[in-house]
Amino acid sequence: MSAETEDQRRTERAAMHRALELAAAPGVPPWPNPRVGCVLLDADGRTVAEGHHRGAGTPHAEAAALTAAGGRARGTTAVVTLEPCDHHGRTGPCSEALVAAAVRRVVYAQADPNPVAAGGAERLRAAGIEVEAGLLADDARALNAVWTRATELQRPFVTWKFATTLDGRSAAADGTSRWVSSTAARRDTHRLRALSDTMLVGSNTVAVDDPELTVRDDRDQPVGRQPLRAVMGLRDLPPAKRIFNDRAETLHLRTRDPHEALEELWSRDRRHVFLEGGPTLAAAFLRAGLVDEIVVYVAPMLLGSGRNAIADLGLGTIADALRPTVTDVTVLPAAPDVAGEEPNVRLTLRPTFGDDPTTAEGRD
Amino acid sequence: MSAETEDQRRTERAAMHRALELAAAPGVPPWPNPRVGCVLLDADGRTVAEGHHRGAGTPHAEAAALTAAGGRARGTTAVVTLEPCDHHGRTGPCSEALVAAAVRRVVYAQADPNPVAAGGAERLRAAGIEVEAGLLADDARALNAVWTRATELQRPFVTWKFATTLDGRSAAADGTSRWVSSTAARRDTHRLRALSDTMLVGSNTVAVDDPELTVRDDRDQPVGRQPLRAVMGLRDLPPAKRIFNDRAETLHLRTRDPHEALEELWSRDRRHVFLEGGPTLAAAFLRAGLVDEIVVYVAPMLLGSGRNAIADLGLGTIADALRPTVTDVTVLPAAPDVAGEEPNVRLTLRPTFGDDPTTAEGRD
Ligand SMILES: NC(=O)c1ccc[n+]([C@@H]2O[C@H](COP(=O)([O-])OP(=O)(O)OC[C@H]3O[C@@H](n4cnc5c(N)ncnc54)[C@H](OP(=O)(O)O)[C@@H]3O)[C@@H](O)[C@H]2O)c1
Ligand SMILES: NC(=O)c1ccc[n+]([C@@H]2O[C@H](COP(=O)([O-])OP(=O)(O)OC[C@H]3O[C@@H](n4cnc5c(N)ncnc54)[C@H](OP(=O)(O)O)[C@@H]3O)[C@@H](O)[C@H]2O)c1
Repeated sequence: MSAETEDQRRTERAAMHRALELAAAPGVPPWPNPRVGCVLLDADGRTVAEGHHRGAGTPHAEAAALTAAGGRARGTTAVVTLEPCDHHGRTGPCSEALVAAAVRRVVYAQADPNPVAAGGAERLRAAGIEVEAGLLADDARALNAVWTRATELQRPFVTWKFATTLDGRSAAADGTSRWVSSTAARRDTHRLRALSDTMLVGSNTVAVDDPELTVRDDRDQPVGRQPLRAVMGLRDLPPAKRIFNDRAETLHLRTRDPHEALEELWSRDRRHVFLEGGPTLAAAFLRAGLVDEIVVYVAPMLLGSGRNAIADLGLGTIADALRPTVTDVTVLPAAPDVAGEEPNVRLTLRPTFGDDPTTAEGRD
Repeated sequence: MSAETEDQRRTERAAMHRALELAAAPGVPPWPNPRVGCVLLDADGRTVAEGHHRGAGTPHAEAAALTAAGGRARGTTAVVTLEPCDHHGRTGPCSEALVAAAVRRVVYAQADPNPVAAGGAERLRAAGIEVEAGLLADDARALNAVWTRATELQRPFVTWKFATTLDGRSAAADGTSRWVSSTAARRDTHRLRALSDTMLVGSNTVAVDDPELTVRDDRDQPVGRQPLRAVMGLRDLPPAKRIFNDRAETLHLRTRDPHEALEELWSRDRRHVFLEGGPTLAAAFLRAGLVDEIVVYVAPMLLGSGRNAIADLGLGTIADALRPTVTDVTVLPAAPDVAGEEPNVRLTLRPTFGDDPTTAEGRD
């Protein structure tokens, strides 16, 4: 333990707020890496250099700050939002870099959630560096909520989104489902798609709906970095389907095992799957306990027959019903530029078989 | 047309506000009669007497005010929230009473919505009384929204209430449905039941659920005036069922025809039916175009199988879906005195086959 003064505490806390701000800089892709920020302080608590991670393949936040500081890094305190990494990835371990630069003290917020690869703090301590953990840890975790949860689970975080009528139908008796949701709900869906790195559907949704599965703007034009489009199922997919157009990458996962599918996506650096159906595939994920968040758009419509929004879950009695926790309810007013639509209601839920209060919305 | 001054207008407007206030007095039963208030003004705009209707079998508002005024009624202006009646009911026509009292002028807000029995204004004019209609008419209509609509239609107003899981189930595969809704949603239902004069269910709901169909408080004790309990269907009902207990009146409507059922209830002075299911009966009312308002409680629960909240409506394709207008969305937080429950969402809707912006909630 170091002999910390009140002054030092205050200075380091302010520096951590600044590091969090750096980490949240706009323009940083939300995947596959966490957002991280770093501030180097001299013995008087003055900022020597700052750095933040700008996305996969670019220097980690600590490395960026050390490079900016050059020789002035010696004897500084590194204030960083995440425990420095200790593994050789595309860049060398940050723990080694901090030791090499002769940093005196390291204060970090969130511990490395990786259950296998952590160890940065130990390595630093072994090298004689003072280490303090946990300052503003909750803020740091919130900044990378989905990445954190995915890293802990060592599989992608899964958001299941579905649209339903008030009587629980996702499509009419003849299979038609365009459109159950309002324009406003569909636009909101595109906003959420853009927060994920992978969109996933079952073979049959491709066969029946032929969706493009891209992120599009209000005029239905593709915008920004497109998530991977993944289709799960054993059957061959007709190459003429729209998911095979050139607007984004596409991956056919030839399996019906949700675990296997997530493993394959994880190995491709995918951290956040946006599962868009259909009811059969969603039920398979729910039954496997592999849904981390549910987003439901309820349209004030009655059909009285047709496809149910979710297929059989093997639950026979009311006591067995899945009772997820409600994390948000939002009324989406009808889009002002579209006539004759009604408000839709969006519910965000956390399945109770998960044990973690993470939701993806608006986080990373 | 009278030579009205600005002063007179202002005075009569203020008197109408007062009449509306009198009409809305607490303790007046919401059915079967409309709420009505009346103020008598002398030539200088001073209040001579006030009156309001206190429920079926008691004097109408005009009669109450005239009685209070006695001989001072002569030459006054009667400001009344509803067009004076012209028919011989349990009390004589108010038109005649106003003529007999030698009132000089009558200002009323809402016209009598009864398509057959109106005519009070004409009778007054024929007797040489000045008549002005429509002052604050919307406020007066809102005060008796359900009564107004029922009178226009000459049948009871029908509110269909149902509870559903997020995937549109009203009961699990084994028939169990206690409880889909949260405690807060069930309490809210009792509040709405109390606004109606009749609760209606199909034979099968009685057979399966054995509901008591009373208005009860938070400790599940019956409170206040109880609506009539009506059961619709051809089969005999076991007398041991709870709807036959002595806590309220019960009526067996031996028909499957919604029109016939409403006719029977109308003949018994029923103005507001609270239809609580099941899915079969609700579908019959929807198909007959006899639902004026829908109240849905959405519970954040998933079943994946079980009874659908609404039975077949004969709609095969998405374009035919019923798309009611949303008049309200309210999140009902979990009751603070009950553990482990989630917020429920209540939607209030107006079917678009109706042509009237009336909703029952909080009105009369
Ligand atoms: N309202 C909404 O939010 C929404 C969203 C999407 C779709 N939809 C509607 O849903 C319908 C399609 O849904 P769906 O349920 O028929 O199809 P689906 O879930 O999209 O695909 C089912 C297919 O996925 C494959 N699959 C992969 N893993 C599986 C597993 N573990 N178990 C079973 N099958 C697995 C199988 O195909 P293989 O034979 O190839 O293995 C299976 O036939 C369409 O009508 C669409 O309009 C609605
Ligand atoms: N979630 C909710 O809000 C809610 C509310 C109520 C009930 N429920 C559930 O719904 C289930 C009962 O619903 P249900 O649909 O089976 O029964 P139901 O609608 O309560 O009753 C159906 C019966 O009503 C009679 N009936 C009257 N008019 C009819 C018409 N026009 N068409 C057809 N039948 C008519 C028929 O009985 P006769 O043979 O006697 O003529 C018919 O069998 C129960 O499981 C209950 O728990 C849920």
